[in-house]
Amino acid sequence: MKNAVVLLSGGLDSATCCAFARRDGFELYAMSFSYGQRHSVELDAAKRVASYFNVADHKIVTIDLRAFGGSSLTSDAMDVPLNRDIESTGDIPNTYVPARNTIFLSFALGWAEVAGCDDLYIGVNAVDYSGYPDCRPEYIEAFSKVANLATKKGVEGNNFTIHTPLINLTKAEIIKSGIEMGVDYSITHSCYKPSDDGRACGKCDSCVLRHNGFVAAGVADPTVYC
Amino acid sequence: MKNAVVLLSGGLDSATCCAFARRDGFELYAMSFSYGQRHSVELDAAKRVASYFNVADHKIVTIDLRAFGGSSLTSDAMDVPLNRDIESTGDIPNTYVPARNTIFLSFALGWAEVAGCDDLYIGVNAVDYSGYPDCRPEYIEAFSKVANLATKKGVEGNNFTIHTPLINLTKAEIIKSGIEMGVDYSITHSCYKPSDDGRACGKCDSCVLRHNGFVAAGVADPTVYC
Repeated sequence: MKNAVVLLSGGLDSATCCAFARRDGFELYAMSFSYGQRHSVELDAAKRVASYFNVADHKIVTIDLRAFGGSSLTSDAMDVPLNRDIESTGDIPNTYVPARNTIFLSFALGWAEVAGCDDLYIGVNAVDYSGYPDCRPEYIEAFSKVANLATKKGVEGNNFTIHTPLINLTKAEIIKSGIEMGVDYSITHSCYKPSDDGRACGKCDSCVLRHNGFVAAGVADPTVYC
Repeated sequence: MKNAVVLLSGGLDSATCCAFARRDGFELYAMSFSYGQRHSVELDAAKRVASYFNVADHKIVTIDLRAFGGSSLTSDAMDVPLNRDIESTGDIPNTYVPARNTIFLSFALGWAEVAGCDDLYIGVNAVDYSGYPDCRPEYIEAFSKVANLATKKGVEGNNFTIHTPLINLTKAEIIKSGIEMGVDYSITHSCYKPSDDGRACGKCDSCVLRHNGFVAAGVADPTVYC
């Protein structure tokens, strides 16, 4: 069986990404990050998803992105926007975490090289998303070049492939695909501003995109809201 | 005064890189990493260099690259090679740390965006070096593209520039340039396998490249060896 490193936040997209990687025939090496995120409860979901997919290994890497903040997800000085009209604006919201996917992919790259994985999976999506620049195809393409120039494996001609199976899907299509592949979305967590007991707020961008996706897919939303 | 994030290991190259950034008119935001490196004594040198250059801020970021190892610098299961014939081989030695510069640059990028810096400095060198792929010009060029595609600042058209003032210099030229700019190399540390009291082994690639550089530059080597 081939091995792949899969970035796993514990959200709907990364859980579906795991399902795609498994469908593609990979043994999964899941990597999550405790990065100082406000919604660190997502790591419990990541553990559930890793267990659900019976991954070969699950590393939770601790890094402190609060050291520089600059995002409402990593700084208590900023508020997570609620009830935002996602459709109406092309602005990048303050939930954007500077360089987050680049940091995550860099660690995934290092682990992939050591573990002998040629393949990385990341559940970025450039359709029903919050406009984060590091979710776009051109970004992934550029990081792929970095991956192959940065590494011994790349120099030796064994290229890394970064798979983004969700990148061009709507949220509804992601959910429908996941359901077909047996994903249990009740074990995932997407909310940026959960209650202390881990229930979803229903009002942040991530909750709204998720709920709208279930509605559009015609699938009952299993999320427990406040 | 303009601000720049400078990656600072505490070694000869990064200290010289600080001098170049200062010469270029930048206020320095120094970033170092406690990454599980065998030679963590270099962080004491990084603090001395940061103090010497009176940097505006110095962040020491803790990350655990021992979580996946794969390098003699981050795994006790591998030995740092000593007395290697650096000239005779194009092989990448086991001191190569998978994805290290990509991880470091990613954090620097995040901090730069939050701190409002358009400029990053990294003291990579592709002449008198150990053949690490993530020190080459084509790698830096690829990461620059990532930096500008990954970030809100990049999307808004305010590009990041990654400066590599040492990349085409010999070690002797680096040292001569540094001396001209007033760098005190006695406060720097390059050795991969120092003694418990921080003295240099004189035998690892990093020591050999450094010492040969001082000899070729006609400058007394201030390093304290075992």
